[in-house]
Amino acid sequence: MSEPTLYPESGFLRLRIDLAYDGTNYSGWAKQPDRRTIQEEIEKALATITRCPVATIVAGRTDAGVHASGQVIHVDVPETTDTTGVLFRLNQLLDEDIRILKVISLDTAFNARFSAISRSYIYKILDANQVLSPLHRLDVAPWYRQLDVDILNTASALLIGQHDFAAFCKFSDGTTTVRNLLRFDWIRDRDGYLIAQIAADAFCYSMVRNLVGAVVCVAEGRYSLDWIAAMLANKERVPDSLVFEGRGLTLVHVQYPEQA
Amino acid sequence: MSEPTLYPESGFLRLRIDLAYDGTNYSGWAKQPDRRTIQEEIEKALATITRCPVATIVAGRTDAGVHASGQVIHVDVPETTDTTGVLFRLNQLLDEDIRILKVISLDTAFNARFSAISRSYIYKILDANQVLSPLHRLDVAPWYRQLDVDILNTASALLIGQHDFAAFCKFSDGTTTVRNLLRFDWIRDRDGYLIAQIAADAFCYSMVRNLVGAVVCVAEGRYSLDWIAAMLANKERVPDSLVFEGRGLTLVHVQYPEQA
Repeated sequence: MSEPTLYPESGFLRLRIDLAYDGTNYSGWAKQPDRRTIQEEIEKALATITRCPVATIVAGRTDAGVHASGQVIHVDVPETTDTTGVLFRLNQLLDEDIRILKVISLDTAFNARFSAISRSYIYKILDANQVLSPLHRLDVAPWYRQLDVDILNTASALLIGQHDFAAFCKFSDGTTTVRNLLRFDWIRDRDGYLIAQIAADAFCYSMVRNLVGAVVCVAEGRYSLDWIAAMLANKERVPDSLVFEGRGLTLVHVQYPEQA
Repeated sequence: MSEPTLYPESGFLRLRIDLAYDGTNYSGWAKQPDRRTIQEEIEKALATITRCPVATIVAGRTDAGVHASGQVIHVDVPETTDTTGVLFRLNQLLDEDIRILKVISLDTAFNARFSAISRSYIYKILDANQVLSPLHRLDVAPWYRQLDVDILNTASALLIGQHDFAAFCKFSDGTTTVRNLLRFDWIRDRDGYLIAQIAADAFCYSMVRNLVGAVVCVAEGRYSLDWIAAMLANKERVPDSLVFEGRGLTLVHVQYPEQA
């Protein structure tokens, strides 16, 4: 990721862009060679509009298959850009599985990534081998065993707070894996889906899907509640088999101070 | 369509199969050369399981792009078929955008098409040029103008009852276009979508999408309410431009006598 600049360079305007996407057909947010990514689609469309190469900074780097209903990015564009038309033109250029919700120009030092206080996700599971509805399948992970929502909540509550989440982070790049998990709880909705609400100051790579995998293990009786505490204490990696798939995960909100 | 037989032939068993599908990537229910259709996918999967060519009879022949949450078919299979495994095996063979919900074997003269008393559809519109949510876009038709739900309801009510719907049927094959429209009303749900409930004893080709197009014309002020009555009386074809797209339409229920 390019170094963030505090303010836009002279002659440039900083835009905050709120967007939503169905991540099914993308290899995640971040640009990668020979892969279709959300970042590349957005930057290509922005470059077409501004006639100028652009680099976006994102609040939550979503993994392959992960969706967003409340993603936030910022981008610096030439100050001659017609900002009022940018939302409409972006939605014309982009495929229907990416939609721009809001574009505002800012004269502050707003940074989509570094100004963010917290990120909120939901994770949706359909358990007990129920048949997934074709029209509501995009953002749901199917699971074969029945899961107890009370045990899911008990196990999830053990993870809340500031911890070193090394055991739940797939790649360690030497930087800290200490995070503050603000919220992690489950409901079973009236249609039978299990829905987790998960928020933290920030997440490491694959952390949400690891957290979901860990509490599911407990809820289906594979491990006891003690195992959760032991994982946190020992920092032993959660086995790969327990990383839940991206399709069930949606970034729903990014919180900034006040009205930033 | 092949001639329906009253009872299965000797050595065969009649199955009623309830299914759901996302019609986005299909050219409708009915088999057509060089097109991907729901019927062909289902019949291929059934033939794989039964090792025998099969012909399905469907309750509602949905058009290209149209979805179903409560479609019903019947099919005669060799009586040696393991019916309990059919649901599971079909769902293994089919893509995730078609799901089998229920398979029951019947010793009655049940015919998915001719035993049906009525078909119920919903049609979903997002009006006023609102941005379509990527995760909820599959079964919604976007519309640029704002639509008044009360006018939609007033116009729709004029169409209820037994009429010759020739004006609303795309192809006339010489058979009757008299149908009994049992229900046609609209709500605006809490998420802002306009949702029509539409039921009839049966529908002609493209009839639901023509009915929606006609009442939308009135709701956006292009025609007066009198125009609806004139259409019914004169049987002048609704212009093609007013046929709403398949993507907003879902077959939700097929009604049979008692527990047939």
